[in-house]
Amino acid sequence: MKIAEPTVERLVQYHRLLEQLVAEGQKVVSSQEMGEMLSFKASQVRKDLSYFGEIGKRGVGYHVDRLHKHISRILASPRKWSIGLVGVGKLGEALLGYKAFQSEKFRIEALFDVDTDKIGKDIQGIPCYSSDAISEVVREKKIEVIIITVPGTAAQHVADKALQAGTVKGILNFAPVSLSVPGDVLLAAVDISVELEKLLFFLKHKDE
Amino acid sequence: MKIAEPTVERLVQYHRLLEQLVAEGQKVVSSQEMGEMLSFKASQVRKDLSYFGEIGKRGVGYHVDRLHKHISRILASPRKWSIGLVGVGKLGEALLGYKAFQSEKFRIEALFDVDTDKIGKDIQGIPCYSSDAISEVVREKKIEVIIITVPGTAAQHVADKALQAGTVKGILNFAPVSLSVPGDVLLAAVDISVELEKLLFFLKHKDE
Repeated sequence: MKIAEPTVERLVQYHRLLEQLVAEGQKVVSSQEMGEMLSFKASQVRKDLSYFGEIGKRGVGYHVDRLHKHISRILASPRKWSIGLVGVGKLGEALLGYKAFQSEKFRIEALFDVDTDKIGKDIQGIPCYSSDAISEVVREKKIEVIIITVPGTAAQHVADKALQAGTVKGILNFAPVSLSVPGDVLLAAVDISVELEKLLFFLKHKDE
Repeated sequence: MKIAEPTVERLVQYHRLLEQLVAEGQKVVSSQEMGEMLSFKASQVRKDLSYFGEIGKRGVGYHVDRLHKHISRILASPRKWSIGLVGVGKLGEALLGYKAFQSEKFRIEALFDVDTDKIGKDIQGIPCYSSDAISEVVREKKIEVIIITVPGTAAQHVADKALQAGTVKGILNFAPVSLSVPGDVLLAAVDISVELEKLLFFLKHKDE
């Protein structure tokens, strides 16, 4: 099953929305409602969900609970992924405290920083190591995913050192630079400033 | 000129990359190089740039400086946008200190929080108001863009109050929920957990 990235993104968003609806006690939901809440077309919602084997009842819609469980299974992890986070500044600390990061799908096993006040301590219960030791610690702890929250100038160097360990399969990059990694390493980026730039660009065009 | 969102996103990424190349002193760049560094196809790069009036020289490529200036003009703001940030927790503070947020295109004019220790103080030089006063302060300061960094449960309420002011044209949402806003309000979302979920999903499929 080869699934395109935008489809996975929508799947994650359906899942999130269904979690909300389950919590609110809603029993059924139509493709129109889901589409409106997520800014997708209803036809897109129907197409995506039927691709994953769920067909709504005409005039009724989807059973919220069943659909939620179905998508949960698709997104489920076969095991807990082991994650390392490099850069325990404000953004790194914000992520550690972020509710969506308290997931059963992974465990943050190690932190890395250059600040000697942080190295050797536990931060939010996780040991912090020197950034000089990334390769060794990542290899020893068999860390598979690296989250990078260092300044842009340090990001490529950090990625290179983590990849030297030979255990890293994916990188989530928050630094505002493009990283180059070998083709077999999955790379995802959260680019805060790109979204803001896009918003300002569209505002300008609305203004004109 | 109506430009699709993915095109604007790529434009912002070309601009970012060219900034890097200018700083590094590189004089020319080919569509192949740009494509490799950004994980786009070279044909996509050529198509995008020619759409904006830049045609590279066969066998040479684009002049880095000229292309950088050209895209800067397209992305330029006609004036400084006035921004308000709601939720001065760790993520909010991380954004205030984030280098890419030190832009000439906008100014963060007001912060809002529910924490009485923060209300009435200046944080990183910006006054912090009570979240109860969002509508009034946003109207008074003619704030056009709201950045939301509150927990998911509070995000819709915060958006509603800001929109009541009648001056807000765009929202950048960091809360992990879908907001509903009137059709004439631009909505952009940075969803940290969606990117992580996507990465884990693809890792799982690689494993199988």
